[in-house]
Amino acid sequence: MMSNPNRVLRSWVDVSPDSDFSIHNIPFGIGRPPGSTPRLFTAIGQYAADLQVLAEHGFFDDLDIDRAIFSSSTLNPFIALGREKTRAVRQRLIDILDDDLDEWDASQLKEFFLLPQTKVSMLLPLQIGDYTDFYSSREHATNVGAMFRDPQNALLPNWLHLPVAYHGRASSIVVSGTPIRRPQGQTMPDGASSPQFGPSRLLDFELEMAFVIGRENAMGHPVSTADAEDYIFGLVLFNDWSARDIQRWEYQPLGPFLSKNFASTISPWVVTLDALEPFRCTSPEPEIAPLPYLQYTGNRNFDIQLEVALQTASGAPHTICRSNFRYLYWNMSQQLAHHTINGCPLRIGDLCASGTISGPNNESYGSMLELTWRGTQPIQLPDGSERRFLHDGDTVIMRGFAQKEGIRVGFGEARGTLIPALQ
Amino acid sequence: MMSNPNRVLRSWVDVSPDSDFSIHNIPFGIGRPPGSTPRLFTAIGQYAADLQVLAEHGFFDDLDIDRAIFSSSTLNPFIALGREKTRAVRQRLIDILDDDLDEWDASQLKEFFLLPQTKVSMLLPLQIGDYTDFYSSREHATNVGAMFRDPQNALLPNWLHLPVAYHGRASSIVVSGTPIRRPQGQTMPDGASSPQFGPSRLLDFELEMAFVIGRENAMGHPVSTADAEDYIFGLVLFNDWSARDIQRWEYQPLGPFLSKNFASTISPWVVTLDALEPFRCTSPEPEIAPLPYLQYTGNRNFDIQLEVALQTASGAPHTICRSNFRYLYWNMSQQLAHHTINGCPLRIGDLCASGTISGPNNESYGSMLELTWRGTQPIQLPDGSERRFLHDGDTVIMRGFAQKEGIRVGFGEARGTLIPALQ
Repeated sequence: MMSNPNRVLRSWVDVSPDSDFSIHNIPFGIGRPPGSTPRLFTAIGQYAADLQVLAEHGFFDDLDIDRAIFSSSTLNPFIALGREKTRAVRQRLIDILDDDLDEWDASQLKEFFLLPQTKVSMLLPLQIGDYTDFYSSREHATNVGAMFRDPQNALLPNWLHLPVAYHGRASSIVVSGTPIRRPQGQTMPDGASSPQFGPSRLLDFELEMAFVIGRENAMGHPVSTADAEDYIFGLVLFNDWSARDIQRWEYQPLGPFLSKNFASTISPWVVTLDALEPFRCTSPEPEIAPLPYLQYTGNRNFDIQLEVALQTASGAPHTICRSNFRYLYWNMSQQLAHHTINGCPLRIGDLCASGTISGPNNESYGSMLELTWRGTQPIQLPDGSERRFLHDGDTVIMRGFAQKEGIRVGFGEARGTLIPALQ
Repeated sequence: MMSNPNRVLRSWVDVSPDSDFSIHNIPFGIGRPPGSTPRLFTAIGQYAADLQVLAEHGFFDDLDIDRAIFSSSTLNPFIALGREKTRAVRQRLIDILDDDLDEWDASQLKEFFLLPQTKVSMLLPLQIGDYTDFYSSREHATNVGAMFRDPQNALLPNWLHLPVAYHGRASSIVVSGTPIRRPQGQTMPDGASSPQFGPSRLLDFELEMAFVIGRENAMGHPVSTADAEDYIFGLVLFNDWSARDIQRWEYQPLGPFLSKNFASTISPWVVTLDALEPFRCTSPEPEIAPLPYLQYTGNRNFDIQLEVALQTASGAPHTICRSNFRYLYWNMSQQLAHHTINGCPLRIGDLCASGTISGPNNESYGSMLELTWRGTQPIQLPDGSERRFLHDGDTVIMRGFAQKEGIRVGFGEARGTLIPALQ
């Protein structure tokens, strides 16, 4: 049974009001305590709570879950238990951490299962079978179309009729904190007569979120928008690092490849749809009524504030973008229904990213490409430097949180520092 | 130590001269004997040889390999042993099956480890992390460019400079014999003012081969063309089923998505590079010298005859295409070097498909799209029917084999029957 998602709870663990990890969140991740093996964790305030230890003390025994699940090196076996059980575990964690201690008093054990997050190495939380990248921000697609094609016909004819998407590379998705090496590759600079080889000179981030598949559909069988959320376990922040010069030369006719597949960064904590329930909101009004399989009822978007900070090797983090997940024209239910309408099978742990989430104002653009308008309007940084695209040593930090009436649910961060290309 | 690949061997097992599975082949697959669990097999003539049984009888004990590897449900743990060990196992199997019986005489055990292939259910042999589809046949790219763009400028500017590729969907790759459901989706017929929804009406196959990654590169570290073959375990036949009407409407600007990711079919036996050694050949002469990272020495292509047969629900198989793997302009070493030049990490079991392999003549075109020139020149079938694209009930059978001086090494088949779209 779920508690009322809008009732404000408090934990006996000290949680700052501006923490992403209030007792209303209770995300799931995979961490490695010092000198030990990976296992499941949740986050509360500045702490990481070790689910393996709680399981060993019997806190989940009545839920009929194999204790070994909590000692996995990915969340996949846990997610595979199904919504009913993962929801019960999350509710149990809320009961354990709630200051209204009753039968699930774990406060005496806190030295065993609560570790400062700084002591736990967070790992990639998922075995990702397939990763799909959508292109669902109208503002982003319009900006890109205006820059590279025709400002008067910035959107291609299909864009308002279906959530455009392509397949990305799962093997190069890394967890926040992993250094990102600048890729080398082929480019065709303006005016050149033959392609050149070298490190990408137009390296960019893309501010995205991604949802994690929590349930499998049988091959050949679509999932409706009505059922789509049953197939979504939760969300993470997603940085789709992009080499614009490589992309421009390679992408026709089959789409981006080496310009994207060198690395993508995700945040380590998967925030469940249950935790985001209080933050449901409408999607932008559709300009054209979509085909029936893309229609839906209810509020299927979520009000999640997003920001990107850029930190140079010598400077402090400086926010260069503020956007919101709610700006997406196509919501997750529509994306998932479209993805499966042809019978494509989704598997537990697959990721579906949103595409760059740009909003209506210049400062809400979710990539350097848009923020600097293809490099023509450099960003001025507090340390006196400026940026058209990213430099070696720059760190990109993405953050996201939802907040409302005393309840805050956040994603932590997806962070990556650029290191120089191989010589 | 490898035996001379050009010396003709014979097996004590009865093998027809036109069998794909001579003792020179010794491919690897995953099969399930009646009423039992999946395990590794090789093929010899019309038989499948059970490696689990051979392991239990100690035939691999001196090779220092955990016997449990032979009882895996995918080839991945076996491939992960590395080239030295997998080559030693293949050589041991040759020694066991060779009619020059000496210390590895297994002929007394044949009733325990040799099963008719018809009795063994062949399964998808790999856990496929990522699947990449190249576009490396110049004839195919030219045909498609001529049909959909400009016959005078059929190849896009990047095509002769790099092996164009995009990411496909791993979750929908199935083994030969799996029925393929006709996908539904959005299309924009000529003259329509808004998109329509329904079963694809232009369903096609694409004749491809795919190589299996046999060794991992570290993220951020490219693999040279000189080293590329060390990263390739072997090859399979690959049918990249395609819905042309869905593709045409969806594919800009990010490439094919739902038009491809409903299904791809592979052959069950992975044929090793060692088995293909006698069939090395040159690649087509490059029109433009590629950048240094795409240059190579030696013969890096393979002479593998390919054919596609179409069998209607009421007819017999009828060959409609004869092509050859050697037609590919970009070879596997170039594809792999390009794929990793930006540091993209490859993992064991990943698949890299060639793209449609079309040759110079009409009858060597590897898709219905090209064979019927976009439906304008229907194929006449022996049962009196004709085809522009595939009908429900049609079976597509791809075969491939290499043959030379008494040595034949083949791939068996990649077969799939179309079943009607869901209502």
